[in-house]
Amino acid sequence: MYYSQFLSHVCMPHAVLLQPTKSWSSSKSNAGTKVGHCSKVPRNVNLEKLRSGYLFPEISRHEAEHLQKNPDESLIRLGIGDTTHPIPDTITLAMAEHVHGLSTIQGYRGYGAEQGNMALRKAIAGKFYQDMGIEADEIFVSDGAQCDISRLQLLLGPNVTVAVQDPSFPAYIDSSVVVGQAGELEEETGKYGNIIYMNCGPENNFFPDLSATPRTDIIFFCSPNNPTGHAASRQQLKQLVEFARANGSIIVYDSAYAVYIRDESPKSIFEIPGAREVAIEISSFSKFAGFTGVRLGWTVVPEELKYSNGFPVIKDFNRIVCTCFNGASNIAQAGGLACLSTDGYQALCKVIGYYMENAKILVDGFKSVDLKVYGGKNAPYIWVHFPGLNSWNVFGEILQKTNIVTVPGRGFGPAGEEYIRISAFGQREHILEASRRLQFYL
Amino acid sequence: MYYSQFLSHVCMPHAVLLQPTKSWSSSKSNAGTKVGHCSKVPRNVNLEKLRSGYLFPEISRHEAEHLQKNPDESLIRLGIGDTTHPIPDTITLAMAEHVHGLSTIQGYRGYGAEQGNMALRKAIAGKFYQDMGIEADEIFVSDGAQCDISRLQLLLGPNVTVAVQDPSFPAYIDSSVVVGQAGELEEETGKYGNIIYMNCGPENNFFPDLSATPRTDIIFFCSPNNPTGHAASRQQLKQLVEFARANGSIIVYDSAYAVYIRDESPKSIFEIPGAREVAIEISSFSKFAGFTGVRLGWTVVPEELKYSNGFPVIKDFNRIVCTCFNGASNIAQAGGLACLSTDGYQALCKVIGYYMENAKILVDGFKSVDLKVYGGKNAPYIWVHFPGLNSWNVFGEILQKTNIVTVPGRGFGPAGEEYIRISAFGQREHILEASRRLQFYL
Repeated sequence: MYYSQFLSHVCMPHAVLLQPTKSWSSSKSNAGTKVGHCSKVPRNVNLEKLRSGYLFPEISRHEAEHLQKNPDESLIRLGIGDTTHPIPDTITLAMAEHVHGLSTIQGYRGYGAEQGNMALRKAIAGKFYQDMGIEADEIFVSDGAQCDISRLQLLLGPNVTVAVQDPSFPAYIDSSVVVGQAGELEEETGKYGNIIYMNCGPENNFFPDLSATPRTDIIFFCSPNNPTGHAASRQQLKQLVEFARANGSIIVYDSAYAVYIRDESPKSIFEIPGAREVAIEISSFSKFAGFTGVRLGWTVVPEELKYSNGFPVIKDFNRIVCTCFNGASNIAQAGGLACLSTDGYQALCKVIGYYMENAKILVDGFKSVDLKVYGGKNAPYIWVHFPGLNSWNVFGEILQKTNIVTVPGRGFGPAGEEYIRISAFGQREHILEASRRLQFYL
Repeated sequence: MYYSQFLSHVCMPHAVLLQPTKSWSSSKSNAGTKVGHCSKVPRNVNLEKLRSGYLFPEISRHEAEHLQKNPDESLIRLGIGDTTHPIPDTITLAMAEHVHGLSTIQGYRGYGAEQGNMALRKAIAGKFYQDMGIEADEIFVSDGAQCDISRLQLLLGPNVTVAVQDPSFPAYIDSSVVVGQAGELEEETGKYGNIIYMNCGPENNFFPDLSATPRTDIIFFCSPNNPTGHAASRQQLKQLVEFARANGSIIVYDSAYAVYIRDESPKSIFEIPGAREVAIEISSFSKFAGFTGVRLGWTVVPEELKYSNGFPVIKDFNRIVCTCFNGASNIAQAGGLACLSTDGYQALCKVIGYYMENAKILVDGFKSVDLKVYGGKNAPYIWVHFPGLNSWNVFGEILQKTNIVTVPGRGFGPAGEEYIRISAFGQREHILEASRRLQFYL
């Protein structure tokens, strides 16, 4: 460590030492003794606005702390929505074959197209967008939906206005703050300025009241929704597309859980006529194929989607993908192709069915103790209402008393207060045990 | 396609049709007949500033066009710097083992830490940063250096000033433009406003005249340099660190080619005392291990690096990595760990030696026809001077006459004019043939 060599270069004003910027606690500096050189580079104002700690690592931190204090308890993780089921052989064999090929002259592959292998792009178009007019050229393979959300934000830039479902997957809002679309965080409401929070709860069938929603440039919309598990109906999505067309908005539609839909709800926004001119869709192999650690996803940007000046959005997105990304791992892409083969897809449908049976077990368990429970029918998430309670307290108490990790609804937005999200990803024995423990506790 | 259904929703003013925004040519719209719905979302002004087409896909496009016109010619690709040598068995076996594990309950892994597996972070710290005081906690595993450059730009935000070597890897400048750090592109000079171009050529031993360089917040510095192949000496890097310390600047140091250094030049900026408080280092397994398609890299952010308000940069970078990224593929990470095993590293050193023999063959070939040639000693790139000539013309003529793909120096910045970059990645027979063809042609 060179740290001690430059103690003479103290540049930090004493006032700053006593008043660390918000969300900053450093034992070294708070001690007020050893302060080395610091740069004259200003901290990014957007990051200064950002709430400290992204939700899911925070949950993992709570989990680790609990484990440390209670090393002998059998923890059940129904928190961050991590897949648990092994990947079917037919898919891992394809990846292993690709890997072995990399050690041969014939099979070695270096850089691929930034947009992804054409065979995979075609397979995605064929499997998920048949009869929707989506061409392989409009599909950009990614290393996952969360990563592409940030690349989309780089595309959109700081000067667009944004609406999100409340509650929703926190990456939409956090990435909006990072690129500078948001105002300050209002402590009282828990909302950022300049962002429209579209309330989605049981009182409106988890679909925003669009007649009361102001126009924004961008509308983030996730269906089946994470965390509520609600899949928007065709009628609801028709309204959404109509609303976007009327307002000249662009919908960023997250369909990462679409394969979990069991009823007639649309699996893609592009099932809705007119969506091609108003929507981008992001999706993922993570929950579809257990690729949470393998990393693979995709984004669809239709040719017809245009900025107000008529410039095609796809051209800018292509530029971003080529400049800020270098393609998904070719091994993951080989796996993705195998997922979409007849055998691979069939095997995955079984896994998805297994998780959805888990969901049913959890839903039934909560219902049996007379709690209001949502989701779990078209999504692997169960959204449980604890009227009048603080969701972080509920989260903490469930963890403490049952050794089950969940996610406090508040982490998904102000409207998530009083709720917790429970994931149905898990081995059956753990799900049964969790359901037993929860019923006993509740 | 729903395109034709909405012809009535014409929103694009006629004037825009006749005057497409710069770098925009769409046959559909230029025809001036069919114009569908377009949004009211403004195009990101940063992307409007950006030169159309990222360099390397442009090169690939030229290559593909040439191949289409000349399908019978044997093309040799010494352009985009793509690795060609198979990955040593010991590494692919480790990846295949990991892949097979994913199909078992014991071996299945879902989400990993966003920052990377701790075993890999420790191995990187041990192999590349021994005795430099870099801890595993300061290493963030990524899916490659180009991707992390953009994540660093998200970290830094639009309000920092930036200096880059000229010529340099185009992702630095392009990503600066994307996040809004740059001014307009000046057609005459080929430079963006607000960016300091630090000229690096034979006249200054490829190191900028720092006494004439204005202070900036950020200094992008790549060594061994892409494209010139120059590895900065210890003396030069000491000057650079001193300059950054004096100015309160942060160096973003790109060491993606460090393993190619054959002489005593530092392989990391952290070999220089005082660098921990002024530098971030980005690096990659791409050229080290042939992972261009597998995708793996890392970034080092030392604990001591601080913004002007004393806030540690590492905390913000950690937030960005958790919010905008979800970890590198766990298969690639298993491979990375194998690269750093004794066997893996030895095998890779042989591959690197092979590429460097290629480089010597190319350098000798150019010297034999009395061209001024740089690089190729500490890097797999050869930088060849064609005094008075336009580099795109040289590129085109070499492609036309010898069927060899290179990269025009101009693509790396204004100071790259009159140069071409030639990559030493290739199979020996192709390198020998390329050298023969080039000598004959030149």
